[in-house]
Amino acid sequence: MRIVITGGAGFLGSRLARVILARGSLTDASGEKRSVRELVLADVVPATVPDSRVSVVTGDLGDPALLERVVTVDTDSIFHLAAVVSGQAEAEFDVGMRVNLDATRALLERCRKLAKPPKLVFTSSLAVFGGPLPDPVPDDAPVTPQTSYGAQKAIGEVLVYDMTRKGYIDGRSMRLPTITVRPGKPNKAASSFASGIIREPLSGVDAICPVARHTQIWVSSPRTVIANLIVGHEAPAASFAHTRSINVPGISIGVGEMVEALRRIAGDAVAERVKWQLDPVIDRIVSTWPARFAPVLGPALGMRADPDFDSIIRAYIADELGR
Amino acid sequence: MRIVITGGAGFLGSRLARVILARGSLTDASGEKRSVRELVLADVVPATVPDSRVSVVTGDLGDPALLERVVTVDTDSIFHLAAVVSGQAEAEFDVGMRVNLDATRALLERCRKLAKPPKLVFTSSLAVFGGPLPDPVPDDAPVTPQTSYGAQKAIGEVLVYDMTRKGYIDGRSMRLPTITVRPGKPNKAASSFASGIIREPLSGVDAICPVARHTQIWVSSPRTVIANLIVGHEAPAASFAHTRSINVPGISIGVGEMVEALRRIAGDAVAERVKWQLDPVIDRIVSTWPARFAPVLGPALGMRADPDFDSIIRAYIADELGR
Repeated sequence: MRIVITGGAGFLGSRLARVILARGSLTDASGEKRSVRELVLADVVPATVPDSRVSVVTGDLGDPALLERVVTVDTDSIFHLAAVVSGQAEAEFDVGMRVNLDATRALLERCRKLAKPPKLVFTSSLAVFGGPLPDPVPDDAPVTPQTSYGAQKAIGEVLVYDMTRKGYIDGRSMRLPTITVRPGKPNKAASSFASGIIREPLSGVDAICPVARHTQIWVSSPRTVIANLIVGHEAPAASFAHTRSINVPGISIGVGEMVEALRRIAGDAVAERVKWQLDPVIDRIVSTWPARFAPVLGPALGMRADPDFDSIIRAYIADELGR
Repeated sequence: MRIVITGGAGFLGSRLARVILARGSLTDASGEKRSVRELVLADVVPATVPDSRVSVVTGDLGDPALLERVVTVDTDSIFHLAAVVSGQAEAEFDVGMRVNLDATRALLERCRKLAKPPKLVFTSSLAVFGGPLPDPVPDDAPVTPQTSYGAQKAIGEVLVYDMTRKGYIDGRSMRLPTITVRPGKPNKAASSFASGIIREPLSGVDAICPVARHTQIWVSSPRTVIANLIVGHEAPAASFAHTRSINVPGISIGVGEMVEALRRIAGDAVAERVKWQLDPVIDRIVSTWPARFAPVLGPALGMRADPDFDSIIRAYIADELGR
């Protein structure tokens, strides 16, 4: 089986790669369990996952020649993770459109050239939702994004469904919660703080929280998101009806509660490293995202949420800090 | 005021042009009522509306040079009617994507170059809806199109809203009912029969109805749709909140009832010219469209529905047959 991960050098992509390699097999679009022959990690920077089954391709997915090298005709599955994050897509409209919409469409069009319609897992986001919504948000809530990132992901979902319906791909759009705790540096995602307020204090560094303590967010740990991406990939096509979009499980938590969980686990001195300083731009974006969902399809497929935020912090400490 | 109608040579575009010319003025994006200085009718075939204020531009909107000529920097309002119809978009996926998505996006991008953000009326369709839905369909029903035409229109709506939110345009997406009775020839719209089963018999010609008698559809007369397009254009930006999409009023009627209305008005011999012959492709497309809506925003803005189907037939006879 030949599997492609776009954004394969990123934090989520490289961890997904390791999990797929450790599993050793996935189920293809015809329902057959097959071993991983080649795992292609495509990104603008080179991926580094040492394994004989890994191929690394570096370049811009918007380049048709590169896309042909990445998605060869014998490709069975694609995890499309490459994207410009929410804050950048809002600040740089054209960049967001090019990466989040044009590159996604080019990838989907490329799939029509393959020997068999591939499975395609599209990483969408809770950011497709915005405006007045039921609380909690049901699976069939209307999609009215209030950010350009959300708009671009919503358009990707429509394309994934329509091209699935046409038989060009076997697509699945996974609306991911805010992922926390991400390792590494802050990025231009409006949700970057959700990792920063845990990660930085644990490393002895102050972190600014740009939203109010009472702000509620819908979160998932990287471990859980990756497990859910695999569940979404493995789900048989017959599990779906008139949409291929899945609200991925998460937990709802207040930002203040996240810091209190940090305090319980790491102590007062660590928790006090979080400084509260409202950023109206980030606060506006985050406030358009619903914070509580009632997912039905995702759990029915076998997706799960983290038990609580304390366990998310502990997983970060174990996975990333090696303590 | 400089106003552009794309698809301006079409049935709806040319009638909209005449109504705008007769009104003589529209309200611009700043809320000012201004007289129509120039009305540009752009289409792949030349429009013929004799009026000194009319300019005719012929060509493909996908051509950037043509688009610059059509949408000059001093343009105040655009009615974007140009589209590939539902049956063709389903049969020729690439043509639908190019005309319904790429040309719409190019038009929206062009708007960013204008002196002032223009008003833009995007003709969307009830075809953005599909799958299980409440009956009647509320304004905030989820958009899960089950045809490529509906998918392309749904994507256009997301772009119109996001670019409105960004301040690039003052957009309004009008989800039109099936329009009947259209004059002229049958076209590749899956809903073409909804006009054909009235128009052809009234002209002494047999018409094939490709869907079952009990099929319910949501319809509006051309007159009423044009009046509603103007209402949508005139509505102040403050009338909208987290979406610019409007479910345009219509009436719900069974296809068999439409033929019975024809019988009441034109007699048995005319009604008997309708032949029932199921076409599974058309029946599938039409069956994905909801047939009954409960529009709230549209009527609040001043949009209206035809009183009944008899009056729709009578309007066709008066407007198009001159009887």
